[in-house]
Amino acid sequence: MMSGFKELTSVAKAVEMLRARVTHRPGKRKVRLEDSLGRYLAVDVVAPLNIPPSERAVVDGYAVRSADTFGSSPSNPSILRVKGFLRAGEEPKVSLSPGEAVEVATGAQLPPGADAVVMYERTRRSGDILEVLEPVPPLGNVSRVGEDVREGEVVLRKGTRLMPWDIAVLASMGIGEVEVYDLRVGLLNVGSELVELGEADAREALKRGLVINSNRYSISALLTSYGFSPQYLGIVRDELEEIREALGRAVREFDAVITVGGASVGRADLTVRAARELGAEVVIHGVQLRPGRANSAAVVQGKPIFMLAGFPVAAIVGFEALAKPLLLHMVGGEEEPKATVKGVLTRRVTTPINVRSYVRVRVFEEGGKTYVEPLALTGSGILSTLVRGNGILVVPEDREGYDEGEEVEVVLLRSPSRTP
Amino acid sequence: MMSGFKELTSVAKAVEMLRARVTHRPGKRKVRLEDSLGRYLAVDVVAPLNIPPSERAVVDGYAVRSADTFGSSPSNPSILRVKGFLRAGEEPKVSLSPGEAVEVATGAQLPPGADAVVMYERTRRSGDILEVLEPVPPLGNVSRVGEDVREGEVVLRKGTRLMPWDIAVLASMGIGEVEVYDLRVGLLNVGSELVELGEADAREALKRGLVINSNRYSISALLTSYGFSPQYLGIVRDELEEIREALGRAVREFDAVITVGGASVGRADLTVRAARELGAEVVIHGVQLRPGRANSAAVVQGKPIFMLAGFPVAAIVGFEALAKPLLLHMVGGEEEPKATVKGVLTRRVTTPINVRSYVRVRVFEEGGKTYVEPLALTGSGILSTLVRGNGILVVPEDREGYDEGEEVEVVLLRSPSRTP
Repeated sequence: MMSGFKELTSVAKAVEMLRARVTHRPGKRKVRLEDSLGRYLAVDVVAPLNIPPSERAVVDGYAVRSADTFGSSPSNPSILRVKGFLRAGEEPKVSLSPGEAVEVATGAQLPPGADAVVMYERTRRSGDILEVLEPVPPLGNVSRVGEDVREGEVVLRKGTRLMPWDIAVLASMGIGEVEVYDLRVGLLNVGSELVELGEADAREALKRGLVINSNRYSISALLTSYGFSPQYLGIVRDELEEIREALGRAVREFDAVITVGGASVGRADLTVRAARELGAEVVIHGVQLRPGRANSAAVVQGKPIFMLAGFPVAAIVGFEALAKPLLLHMVGGEEEPKATVKGVLTRRVTTPINVRSYVRVRVFEEGGKTYVEPLALTGSGILSTLVRGNGILVVPEDREGYDEGEEVEVVLLRSPSRTP
Repeated sequence: MMSGFKELTSVAKAVEMLRARVTHRPGKRKVRLEDSLGRYLAVDVVAPLNIPPSERAVVDGYAVRSADTFGSSPSNPSILRVKGFLRAGEEPKVSLSPGEAVEVATGAQLPPGADAVVMYERTRRSGDILEVLEPVPPLGNVSRVGEDVREGEVVLRKGTRLMPWDIAVLASMGIGEVEVYDLRVGLLNVGSELVELGEADAREALKRGLVINSNRYSISALLTSYGFSPQYLGIVRDELEEIREALGRAVREFDAVITVGGASVGRADLTVRAARELGAEVVIHGVQLRPGRANSAAVVQGKPIFMLAGFPVAAIVGFEALAKPLLLHMVGGEEEPKATVKGVLTRRVTTPINVRSYVRVRVFEEGGKTYVEPLALTGSGILSTLVRGNGILVVPEDREGYDEGEEVEVVLLRSPSRTP
């Protein structure tokens, strides 16, 4: 008789144990900037030059010698002679002598001799005679050499996840390609009850007790959204040999492997056995997580195998709690900050002690207050709670839930609803 | 002489005025589920069937008639006879008479006659004799027909941005394609000083006063990351006719147009003029935003033209404050919740009254406390502050800043730093 998971590991301990064992590093790949969004840098990026490389006007106006403007005022303006106009990108052809000014557009280089820019609004002009109504200090309205980026400095560190502005900084330095990690994750779905979407008439298949392989889509999309490279490897039946063979191939070819299904205790707990037979160390066999206590993980040749439960929500929770921190570890990346909100519980939430529970909730606003409504269904298969809800209340291991009326902090998946 | 922007519009007012005028709706496109992540639904999705379509076991154990287990206990177990084993996806071939049980795997259909499932852990077994140690209520450990999704209900509403779990729900109902909005945004970069990345030696070009077109990358990446479809249309010189022609073509071909550069007051304020000459209503000519007060917007044939300032950070801020809310409006989408954190200001922040200011900050943790350090540089061109910093302090219009030591809420771009 099977007696369930003998000892469940806490999530924190599970992640720590896996981190100590996952030593494999994913491959690197050069990508063009337009393909780099959301990827993790595999190298430190050093600035090849100063930005800006020369002094620049940061406003539209007149380049001047600042000393010429000292003491000026609307009643006693400095009088200068305008020598021409300089746009951004034009080579200055004149240099400034005392008493002279050059009209400049934003971004224009300062002509030799000039050390400041006066904004249009602080001047009056008639022909080539300019009145400056206010003094400007040296370097006033000027951006200095290397002010934005200094040549030789590390601008972006290895492990940084590339955001739109990071990519723009790289472009502005003339860097058109970067080396990023290409963390390739093989995804295997295990279960004799599974059929592929489109493989059979959905209604017929479901009536017959089959299940459409929806975990393939959620886990692939999660991997993509975090900047990893999923490769779907298909469905494997609940047969030990089939699983072992597919898993063995996946481990050889990929940096990490995720299996979904076939991980629960019972006759169908075959994935863990297959991993063991492949020489993997089963580091986590069940975890103090709800939903998702069947989630397990093994390591072989320094590569992780995440064996996620087949229930859709349990698989997603297992991915977030176990797989994601380890995949980030493999690329030196950091957990991104999550949007959270505080609100008052509309009903009591009861969770088991010593288990980290992910409670799906609906956050709504009413009368200027924020409320958190726990969704009724507890089944880990109830994927629609993630669709109907808009948040997750993570109840830590040392709590047995929260009382009605208590204020809790919730991770938001979407904006709070405006209807109760 | 130009006197600057005559009347600047507040950000809220600008968005409201644009919303009232932008009536064009983007095209729709059928995409396969694997291409739908982050896109906005163009239709309500109605469930074509019940999920689950029949009663299912939600644990591994034994399907029973619940009445047979009433009153059972470890010292006085119910005794049942096991008639076989049923996996998920198998058609039940037997039906249960009183005193009988069928071993079931998670996900298996209940055989006729059974109305509950007893977990392995609550049983003892020897041969085909099963002892049930605890009563199970009717529907105990069973997921009911339509429990997850009811046939005919709207599962996902038009305008919903598709997340991994949404895609999985669609898959589980046998829906393999969805209709999403394809909001095509034409991107024009304006400026005679601009060169494309890779077009010339970066150091040489920058020395000569040219600027690499980095805004192309930040704005394209922002559009992509929010689920829109950018199309880069190239660089246009600071020549009215050139701009007018390119803008006219873009407006005809795309759902929305973004120009970057050529929008500031001064000799180079040509984009706004070109828009006007094309018959567009210039709704916003300058906005109470810092950086980014030069950001402007026009509407023609119900389509928006966002004319963003050429300074990299001003362009990004203008995109976030003006373009993004309008693009979301066009697809019926909602602003996503942002990650925020509260921290104590390490230095005073001074901002102008009646202006919404985006102050770039570095959030760090020290001694269990969170601090917010305003980054020194105020130039809107200083893109590196977004790279060096990890947050944005948005100072609203009714404040002139915050004092040192005051607690402020900051939008996090990355996780807080662990070094001061």
